[in-house]
Amino acid sequence: MIRKYLYGTPFPTNAVVTDIPPSTEQLPFFETDSKGTFTYPLQNEDIVYGLGEQIRGINKRGWQYVSWNSDNPNHQEDTRSLYGAHNFILISGRQTFGAFFDNPGRMEFDIGYTHGNRMQIRAEKNDLTVYIITGQDEKHIVKQFRQLIGRSYVPPFWAFGYGQSRWGYQNEQDVRQVAQQYQAAGIPLDSIYLDIDYMERYKDFTVDPKRFPDLGKLVQDMRTQGIRLVPIIDAGVKIETGYDVYQEGVAHNYFCKNAEGKDFVGAVWPGRVHFPDFLQPEARDWFGKKYAVLTDLGIEGFWNDMNEPAIFYTEDRLAETCSEIQRLTAGNMGIDEYFAFTGMVAGLNGNKGDYDKFYHNVAGKMVKHSDVHNLYGMNMTRSAYEALREICPDKRTLFFSRSSYIGAHRYGGIWQGDNKSWWSHILQSMQQLPGLNMAGFLFTGSDTGGFGSDTTEDLMLRWLQYALFTPLFRNHSANGTRMQELYRFDTLHAAGEMVKIRYCLIPYLYSEFLKAALRDDMMFKPLAFDFPADHMAKETEDQLLIGDELMIAPVYKQNARGRYVYLPEEMMLVRMQTWDQIHTEILPKGHHYVDVALEELVFFIRQQKAIPFGRPARNTDCIDHSALQLLGYPGCTYELYADNGFSPEPETSLSVTTL
Amino acid sequence: MIRKYLYGTPFPTNAVVTDIPPSTEQLPFFETDSKGTFTYPLQNEDIVYGLGEQIRGINKRGWQYVSWNSDNPNHQEDTRSLYGAHNFILISGRQTFGAFFDNPGRMEFDIGYTHGNRMQIRAEKNDLTVYIITGQDEKHIVKQFRQLIGRSYVPPFWAFGYGQSRWGYQNEQDVRQVAQQYQAAGIPLDSIYLDIDYMERYKDFTVDPKRFPDLGKLVQDMRTQGIRLVPIIDAGVKIETGYDVYQEGVAHNYFCKNAEGKDFVGAVWPGRVHFPDFLQPEARDWFGKKYAVLTDLGIEGFWNDMNEPAIFYTEDRLAETCSEIQRLTAGNMGIDEYFAFTGMVAGLNGNKGDYDKFYHNVAGKMVKHSDVHNLYGMNMTRSAYEALREICPDKRTLFFSRSSYIGAHRYGGIWQGDNKSWWSHILQSMQQLPGLNMAGFLFTGSDTGGFGSDTTEDLMLRWLQYALFTPLFRNHSANGTRMQELYRFDTLHAAGEMVKIRYCLIPYLYSEFLKAALRDDMMFKPLAFDFPADHMAKETEDQLLIGDELMIAPVYKQNARGRYVYLPEEMMLVRMQTWDQIHTEILPKGHHYVDVALEELVFFIRQQKAIPFGRPARNTDCIDHSALQLLGYPGCTYELYADNGFSPEPETSLSVTTL
Repeated sequence: MIRKYLYGTPFPTNAVVTDIPPSTEQLPFFETDSKGTFTYPLQNEDIVYGLGEQIRGINKRGWQYVSWNSDNPNHQEDTRSLYGAHNFILISGRQTFGAFFDNPGRMEFDIGYTHGNRMQIRAEKNDLTVYIITGQDEKHIVKQFRQLIGRSYVPPFWAFGYGQSRWGYQNEQDVRQVAQQYQAAGIPLDSIYLDIDYMERYKDFTVDPKRFPDLGKLVQDMRTQGIRLVPIIDAGVKIETGYDVYQEGVAHNYFCKNAEGKDFVGAVWPGRVHFPDFLQPEARDWFGKKYAVLTDLGIEGFWNDMNEPAIFYTEDRLAETCSEIQRLTAGNMGIDEYFAFTGMVAGLNGNKGDYDKFYHNVAGKMVKHSDVHNLYGMNMTRSAYEALREICPDKRTLFFSRSSYIGAHRYGGIWQGDNKSWWSHILQSMQQLPGLNMAGFLFTGSDTGGFGSDTTEDLMLRWLQYALFTPLFRNHSANGTRMQELYRFDTLHAAGEMVKIRYCLIPYLYSEFLKAALRDDMMFKPLAFDFPADHMAKETEDQLLIGDELMIAPVYKQNARGRYVYLPEEMMLVRMQTWDQIHTEILPKGHHYVDVALEELVFFIRQQKAIPFGRPARNTDCIDHSALQLLGYPGCTYELYADNGFSPEPETSLSVTTL
Repeated sequence: MIRKYLYGTPFPTNAVVTDIPPSTEQLPFFETDSKGTFTYPLQNEDIVYGLGEQIRGINKRGWQYVSWNSDNPNHQEDTRSLYGAHNFILISGRQTFGAFFDNPGRMEFDIGYTHGNRMQIRAEKNDLTVYIITGQDEKHIVKQFRQLIGRSYVPPFWAFGYGQSRWGYQNEQDVRQVAQQYQAAGIPLDSIYLDIDYMERYKDFTVDPKRFPDLGKLVQDMRTQGIRLVPIIDAGVKIETGYDVYQEGVAHNYFCKNAEGKDFVGAVWPGRVHFPDFLQPEARDWFGKKYAVLTDLGIEGFWNDMNEPAIFYTEDRLAETCSEIQRLTAGNMGIDEYFAFTGMVAGLNGNKGDYDKFYHNVAGKMVKHSDVHNLYGMNMTRSAYEALREICPDKRTLFFSRSSYIGAHRYGGIWQGDNKSWWSHILQSMQQLPGLNMAGFLFTGSDTGGFGSDTTEDLMLRWLQYALFTPLFRNHSANGTRMQELYRFDTLHAAGEMVKIRYCLIPYLYSEFLKAALRDDMMFKPLAFDFPADHMAKETEDQLLIGDELMIAPVYKQNARGRYVYLPEEMMLVRMQTWDQIHTEILPKGHHYVDVALEELVFFIRQQKAIPFGRPARNTDCIDHSALQLLGYPGCTYELYADNGFSPEPETSLSVTTL
């Protein structure tokens, strides 16, 4: 059952698709006070799931989280905000229920931080809609919530292939070399991503004519090798006379305004930019149609970046800062002045105060950005999604975004944001998956190998062994860090085998993805969702169930040659170093220490289940669905979903094959 | 056997105490090349121990470390340098040997980073002494190395008590309140630390007369409550006319000079400072004698901070930066200028280039600081240690430092540097202990609860359950973070019990500390050191042996109510929530999942061993050694070391009691 409660005058976020009349009953579970705080007493056994793309564990207890979409590639244990705002929580314990706080502004979730046994939730502005969802169990609650927020985005089949990306592929030659080296190494590859380097001075919908003199030709050449190019699109539009996007936006008032009604000036990669006002339907339509500049060249996929929106600085704050720097550095700069100085400079980026200084035009009314901040990325993705349904009506376009709000899951996927080449970020990615799935974000994955900082051979191998199970499987890294294309490592062979195994698993992963999307289910579940009475399952933070058949328990610690695994039931351990040499072993329910060599993939098939396992392919176009075999317990069947992989509207009744 | 090899003209670091003639044989194990790189091929089974206070695991494989003493409270997986330079490594595997690279400048240890199966070590300047140590096993190699570098510092007995610290105790009232609240809560306390707040505008050897109008009286009042005050001393000396330390240092040329022979100007807390030239014996003697200002008031312990030395900025670089900021911010500041701008400001702190700009006077010769950088903190501690042996000849003074080099372990302890309230920093502290012990640093511990960032109740409890085993047991936090004195939490009772259990364990911990110090042994050992044939013991990264009797396996993950523990032999599990209710259970060798409630301490007593366990005491003065009981396997004896706890030179033949 879903009950809806209104507080103040909520802004229509477009998060839900079903109109429910407000409840006349009292809000259950929570106590509320005059300050707008929602308080829930936590029992020792209570687990709090949810919050989507947030830091820390699957169980969110013990920290204060803030929903405020933020660009923070260096996120750590004490980070409070990341790229997405996913205000759905699921309390499981003495009482089990879901709660969605539909509010596009800043929200705090104190989940046992101030007091270990108390949850306190508060919106900065007390205008919000609260949905309370009860049901038979955790999965039933999630399913109802997912039905409320609408069906998840389904990408094209090729998006399940392996992708290579890097901020720093400077020109056509760099891109061709990546393709060539992967081919030479015999490692499958479906896509190469273009980061900001391809644009002319970071201007959206431009291509640098010197470095990419004929992008259309490059797209076609790559396509004949089975590789798709996936360019980035940023939120900010460069201020430059003669640049069509800039000029049109100004002419039609498509940009966000400052308090004086002038186009607001922020700065990102190109320096000074305006931000499209994606809350205006006309601006969305206008910006979205610009993608045709690239689809006309044969592009079939995009990623939307910097759409929290990230703001490196604003002109006003920069001027203040520079003048303050002069004052602070004039005399003997001691501790107070020094911290003020360095703090001001560090605080230019993503300064909360800057988000108070611009406005959206919502049906003629000026709405302060900070009141609706968390909707920006979602509406940028919506802009592209809706336009591309018109521009390319005959096929799905790959689409994923950095920033998001619940509702954005209908328009595209998200990647899990900029991360680091840290072992802890393998686990962090894994721990976000259940919360993201609850919030509808099924097409997702981490920057494999780590974006910032320098990766290592072993980190890359272990990351591959985890990421080969995630729908988005992309190796991505930042300019200035160690190059991490798989062919650069001594462990090339082992890495290549992991990618090949991915391709053997794609029929399974695609099936499970579509089942989850079409049935409003989770693809990645905490163990306790299927084993609710199992005490250990509730504690397990580093294993996940995939669909109804698999359990993953990746190694995510350096120099480890094995790990502890808890089996909530008897399972079949599957072990492979190459795609064609598979060792299986039945392990009983309980605790196990499992050896896992560095070059080895280990996963588990659930009792009396089996999965389809194919053969490697150069790319997804070459996957041979007739070569599938069942891997798992003998005598089992598997419901395989297979469609043409590109129809814009996947049928809800797909062909079901029993192998 | 120890062999010594000279390269170039090594600077005398004072790290070793035994003069060994250089070997005439070829350097074993390593290949060397003309660039001064020492290369060793790593086998799969090889473990590389050592590097003391460095990041990552007990096994250092898989990263590139840089010995360059650095102030980095936000250290993460990709940090390369921390507060200490401890260039001792111990390779264990196909060949087992130790190697000490005695070099006071910058050194790189690429331990399977560039290539997973290769170790490459290189000093920036190829003037160094290399010691190669071989022996019967890992422990024998360490013992020989420890004998080479001389006996470890032994603090007074009271230093094993619990200490409360915070940067932010602003005045006498704050300090009195801490004492009072601990007393009211019934939690033992031996010391309260004074951070930079007690000084007059951050000037060493001054006391702010407004905020601490009578420090001597405060010291005495606290002392009658059994509490010692432990003030901080910083490396930089404020430039201020009339300030005696500054004026004397200038007059006698006791400060480091710039290339023009003028006193070098850096900046830290007080703003502009000079750095005492601790490499001059006269300067060491002069600065060390200044501690009498505080010992005269009854102070019996100190901590030395900022002695890497940390440099917030130098005047020259600040001026350059400000002028560059003007240029960069003048036009449209795009990506390149923005990163240059923010990078310059962030790069002011600890800028490597600044360490090239000042000089030490070594027997009349000017030595560039960066060539001897890693010796600075050690010589600051030496300065205090040697002077205090004269000033307070009748007792040991508590002494620990942030920065260190091997050799500093003879003069004082170290704390494990500024850290964060992160769960990962519990494990990080634990993983540093074996390497620190190898390098002679026995008196050490982490900032319990975490220094930077906001702690949580559960993090504090879990941290206490680990830190109550470390010699230095201090709760410390930074200004601006959540207050974390134990009486501030709902979990006050459980936290208090953990501190009481610490006091019950002090007779054991003090004994094991002194045995390790006097016998040149390690107090904290990796499991594999005692179980060298055990494959799992070699992999275990989150358990440690203490002495010959204990094994610890703390819980360091949020929301975990248990953990996996590997027992390399049968052991007795000890479980307690209060000091006087002890549950024990014999567990067989092998893997176990052990439940550990949040309020619960669990540790292990080794097979056929027992430890002395006493009763809680308000402070160490009140510990009743006659109340000790044996805890562990029946019929066992224990060698108890007990002395008066303050004699400056502990006897090597202490009284040995068999309980």
